[in-house]
Amino acid sequence: MSRVKELFGIKYPIIQGGMVWCSGWKLASAVSNAGGLGLIGSGSMYPDVLKEHIIKCKKATDKPFGVNIPLLYSHIEEHIDIILKERIKIVFSSAGNPDKYTSILKDNGIIVVHVIANTKFALKAINAGVDAIVAEGFEAGGHNGIDETTTMCLIPKIRDIASLPLIAAGGIASGSSMLAAFALGADGVQVGSRFAVCKESSSHDRFKEAVLKSSDGDTALTLKEITPVRLLKNQFYQNIQQAYQTNATLDELKDLLGKGKARKGIFEGDVLNGELEIGQVSALINNIETAKEVIDDIVLEFNNEMKKILKVSL
Amino acid sequence: MSRVKELFGIKYPIIQGGMVWCSGWKLASAVSNAGGLGLIGSGSMYPDVLKEHIIKCKKATDKPFGVNIPLLYSHIEEHIDIILKERIKIVFSSAGNPDKYTSILKDNGIIVVHVIANTKFALKAINAGVDAIVAEGFEAGGHNGIDETTTMCLIPKIRDIASLPLIAAGGIASGSSMLAAFALGADGVQVGSRFAVCKESSSHDRFKEAVLKSSDGDTALTLKEITPVRLLKNQFYQNIQQAYQTNATLDELKDLLGKGKARKGIFEGDVLNGELEIGQVSALINNIETAKEVIDDIVLEFNNEMKKILKVSL
Repeated sequence: MSRVKELFGIKYPIIQGGMVWCSGWKLASAVSNAGGLGLIGSGSMYPDVLKEHIIKCKKATDKPFGVNIPLLYSHIEEHIDIILKERIKIVFSSAGNPDKYTSILKDNGIIVVHVIANTKFALKAINAGVDAIVAEGFEAGGHNGIDETTTMCLIPKIRDIASLPLIAAGGIASGSSMLAAFALGADGVQVGSRFAVCKESSSHDRFKEAVLKSSDGDTALTLKEITPVRLLKNQFYQNIQQAYQTNATLDELKDLLGKGKARKGIFEGDVLNGELEIGQVSALINNIETAKEVIDDIVLEFNNEMKKILKVSL
Repeated sequence: MSRVKELFGIKYPIIQGGMVWCSGWKLASAVSNAGGLGLIGSGSMYPDVLKEHIIKCKKATDKPFGVNIPLLYSHIEEHIDIILKERIKIVFSSAGNPDKYTSILKDNGIIVVHVIANTKFALKAINAGVDAIVAEGFEAGGHNGIDETTTMCLIPKIRDIASLPLIAAGGIASGSSMLAAFALGADGVQVGSRFAVCKESSSHDRFKEAVLKSSDGDTALTLKEITPVRLLKNQFYQNIQQAYQTNATLDELKDLLGKGKARKGIFEGDVLNGELEIGQVSALINNIETAKEVIDDIVLEFNNEMKKILKVSL
């Protein structure tokens, strides 16, 4: 746990997941100012937009923050350039092979963390020389692995094969789930969904409301043939399921997914026809709070749950 | 936690899941003798076989044990009769509506626990008057719910709506995952997969070996249109996936599933063409031990992990 705090130079081992259309400079700086590690999610940004967010984030906080880069993103080369020029100190890479960029980033003194969802990619990341791993379970929102391994099963498995700092993601939005992640062997946690709907998130109010209203069973992992993604089961999701029922081809599915559906749903608030990426833990989120309120609440609950669990003896 | 121990009169709040072709009198009595709660899994038994197992289990242990009954099983009426006549004190019901039988069992002084996988069925079980709930996550082996909610997300959600004793299932096979379940709000745990391959399990050696060999990503939840079931991805599983690829009808899928495939795989050891029901946590199971060794190891690890987590402070 202290390893994650030391690695990033932060007060609490709580990382805010980099999320498309949610985590710009406003959210990232708010999380960092509150003692966690804020991440700018570059996956929805053109290079000039990313640059602007980095500059604004630097102005908004003197605390460490990072940038999340999906390695398969079409603007990845330009993003890497900006990250180097702007002297970003922490990069979380995801959705792709860590081989190519880890050494470039490391050679420039950047702390590199890679997000994985199974043993195979954990070993790839370790071999590539990353400083830490985020292990993300099946319950996590947005893009995810194909193996469907849950946080409960993934964290101990990765802990068995990896000695470097391990950050658990997927299903974590509270102090009690953070404590559970630590019990499983994690040194820190990455929280996505709860930050996706907090005040500083750039997501649309209608997206936030849809998340607050959701209960268990209201999200699903779908589009496994293209890129598996967990989202709220809205009209857009139902259209995809209908396409499956009528045996749509891969091209038909890709047409249906189209472009900009996450922007439409999360940023523009079209909760019917947009792609509403969120984790299963949305069922446990009931309030729109500031990033600081979220972090303070997680820390308080963690400490309270710790006191409770101390009373348990077998 | 102590609530679960008190409810059943057992030493450790560790329940052995009732599992077809694994948990007869031999496993159930071994678990109960070791301080947990053993369950005879009646889902694979004809009525006369269940009666025989109950009689043998009584002879093999003077500790509390129970019977698991899948409510949709064709012999359910006869099983209930036997349970009443043999004065069974603890019944875990699963796979069906708890309305009908809970009151019959309760009227006969039996402690009734119902297995659920979402909020809706948790409320049904509470309304039916059960004494405790098993909340089973998506990662669990064998038959499962359709909502795919993982243990990490399900336990806190059920804890929120239910004040009665809560037993976590799915992904739990060690002291650290037991501690995690407690952090999430559980009062006890149900362990399936690890007991499925222990020495007293009636499963075939080839089944046990297949489980020990498996890693993360080697199980899947399939046949969601019939009854969702988690199993090892063997030839039988691949045949089902091929049927999906060629748009098999529901009847064709049912034909493919056929009858007796779980017996074939788990009991007879046909690891290619049989149905190998097991949880995701199989990736973390590496030894064939006695039930007592399993329980002692879980308890020891739980206490060690507890000491470690005490050193964490935020």
